[in-house]
Amino acid sequence: MRTMAVIGTGLIGTSVALAVARRGVTVFLSDRDPAAARTAAALGAGLASAPAAPVDLAVIAVPPSQVGAVLAEAQERGLAESYTDVASVKAEPERAALSRAPDPHRYVGGHPLAGRERSGPLAARADLFRGRNWVLTPSRLTSDVAFDRALELVALCEAVPVVMRSQDHDAAVAVTSHVPHLMASLMAARLREGPADLPSLAGQGLRDATRIAGGDSRLWGDILQANAPAIAGVLKDLHTDLSRLVPALDALARPGGSERDHGMRTLVDLLDRGISGLAEIPDARPGASPEDPLVRVAVADRPGELARLLAAVAELGVPADDVRVEGAGVGAGAGVSRNDGVDASGFAVRFSVPPRTADRLVAALDTEGWDVAVVRERDGERGLGGATLAGTARSGRRPQ
Amino acid sequence: MRTMAVIGTGLIGTSVALAVARRGVTVFLSDRDPAAARTAAALGAGLASAPAAPVDLAVIAVPPSQVGAVLAEAQERGLAESYTDVASVKAEPERAALSRAPDPHRYVGGHPLAGRERSGPLAARADLFRGRNWVLTPSRLTSDVAFDRALELVALCEAVPVVMRSQDHDAAVAVTSHVPHLMASLMAARLREGPADLPSLAGQGLRDATRIAGGDSRLWGDILQANAPAIAGVLKDLHTDLSRLVPALDALARPGGSERDHGMRTLVDLLDRGISGLAEIPDARPGASPEDPLVRVAVADRPGELARLLAAVAELGVPADDVRVEGAGVGAGAGVSRNDGVDASGFAVRFSVPPRTADRLVAALDTEGWDVAVVRERDGERGLGGATLAGTARSGRRPQ
Repeated sequence: MRTMAVIGTGLIGTSVALAVARRGVTVFLSDRDPAAARTAAALGAGLASAPAAPVDLAVIAVPPSQVGAVLAEAQERGLAESYTDVASVKAEPERAALSRAPDPHRYVGGHPLAGRERSGPLAARADLFRGRNWVLTPSRLTSDVAFDRALELVALCEAVPVVMRSQDHDAAVAVTSHVPHLMASLMAARLREGPADLPSLAGQGLRDATRIAGGDSRLWGDILQANAPAIAGVLKDLHTDLSRLVPALDALARPGGSERDHGMRTLVDLLDRGISGLAEIPDARPGASPEDPLVRVAVADRPGELARLLAAVAELGVPADDVRVEGAGVGAGAGVSRNDGVDASGFAVRFSVPPRTADRLVAALDTEGWDVAVVRERDGERGLGGATLAGTARSGRRPQ
Repeated sequence: MRTMAVIGTGLIGTSVALAVARRGVTVFLSDRDPAAARTAAALGAGLASAPAAPVDLAVIAVPPSQVGAVLAEAQERGLAESYTDVASVKAEPERAALSRAPDPHRYVGGHPLAGRERSGPLAARADLFRGRNWVLTPSRLTSDVAFDRALELVALCEAVPVVMRSQDHDAAVAVTSHVPHLMASLMAARLREGPADLPSLAGQGLRDATRIAGGDSRLWGDILQANAPAIAGVLKDLHTDLSRLVPALDALARPGGSERDHGMRTLVDLLDRGISGLAEIPDARPGASPEDPLVRVAVADRPGELARLLAAVAELGVPADDVRVEGAGVGAGAGVSRNDGVDASGFAVRFSVPPRTADRLVAALDTEGWDVAVVRERDGERGLGGATLAGTARSGRRPQ
């Protein structure tokens, strides 16, 4: 790929342009607001001018409801050999392409899973897509050439391609993005109606839970509208969930009521289902893997001794988020060879550490006089994963 | 305060103990699980033993439903002169204290607004409460001595005391904490039921929105049960909100329907109310203040020139999150004294920077040849705010 056009130089469009421009692609930038295109150019994202000949690929980076019209207009003037878009809804743009674009074969839908709280070209980053999933949704008409160009774009942005049907994509983002956004908006809106003391009680949990509600309301209105059928379905399910949850809370609110036990079971069951749902989110706990080596250190039962060990580990730059303490008295009987400084009632602490770190940690702690050993080896090294085209093999060439 | 007891050495209890122990207070640690108390002691949080004489203050750090029983038991054996707790629900512990404790005058409810995703003594940090709000909920019986001891505890932990009625506290946390938790659980639970491709579409927004659902389900079940009446009220409101929102989405899902405009207005209105609700959360955008000085830099309209400026600013360690670009052609006419390197169609970029940084930024950029000036001075320095007892004055001595 040697030439590309980016239509719409907001956060995503400008980030795409920055990523491919530094790989040597000549990028032509345009935007409804010429100042935005010039800002992107001033950032080094390309040229704020029109190409003299058709480019290899045009990337349409406009709100979902406008993709169809922008695609049709661009194809009418022969802007590019192939076309893709980056909208976060895929079925409606596909429908528009199939019904309105002069040459729907040349188009494949796309959605890079990346974003920032800030918008506009100044928030753009060339590495915004690195390691992120980038969904491609070829239609029944998409040509191999258009699909391969889009794959090349994903590779240039160092993202991981994932191939899906447009309607499957939309059903999934209703659950993972659109309904969470609406619920965050509903909860944030209630903050204005609560008691005056309420802001004193806002903590990090609330900030995290409502942060997505901060996005641009016009752009989000457009996105949600374009995926309204899928969103309505999920909202109805949530409405039903609430219809069951409210009676459980009502039962718990009545002191001594006979339905308290049932209410409590309903509540804890929901909390447990939520916890297990979190496990579906990749990298929810970055860095910790159940297969990581375990390093075990014996600790004398003296005030501050454990703090001294944790400080030593932290000084070595080892993430110690997954530390467990074992009961007293186990220090001597677990294959630990030395015993100096550990009395019979000492602790044993286990650290789960990344595979490349275990040996270094053991050597360093041993040097400092700690009683330390690796108690679980990894079976093998994890691959680095995520070569840029891995997703294609994973998801198959065409979902249809 | 010279001596303290902490009952319950989980995350909060151990963090309290670490904070006061390093200020010279002798802390006696206990827990239903003796190994947890010994772990806290090994971290330097105090002594895992019982005091020989009554301590100045006992901090009850157990789940809300157990506060009443633990308080009564501790008062029966004369553990302390004064008592407080750290449970995140306040009305039920207060009711229990008034009805069951031998001496309710000696007790004042407390709730530090701090937490971590991890639990247990190993997650504890001496600075967990620094700068955080710590709600105190004196009852009609709470003595001045008990209240002052609790204020002293808050000061030792470097937190900010906020005085509220227990029932006002509970109404507020239902909105700021408990309902967001339940909604996160409902949304996370749906992730298990979606299509197989769903995890490919999980991004940072979903992770943030659902993170609070990861807390311990037994502890959270206890918390939610203790505040069931207030939570049920907020859930009913949300249920009503959803009953209005679903028809709006249904209308948007019908192509060409006559109610589309109304549906879109309902949607965008909700999104806008959410955005304005976010403004109620303190520090939602840390570091940026509308009164910060504005620094303006002229930028030539050459590819990459803006990137060069942003890199120069970043190198100076200045947070450039609040950058605005002004239209073209304004570089020359805005009181900027020099004009070298700026052509007539150049940009002007405005940075909002912290007050102490503006002069340094201007001097450094000027040295590097940029055309730079401060265009809005601050009226005055902001106070550092948040002296440890500021909240007391703010909220009044007693809310009743």
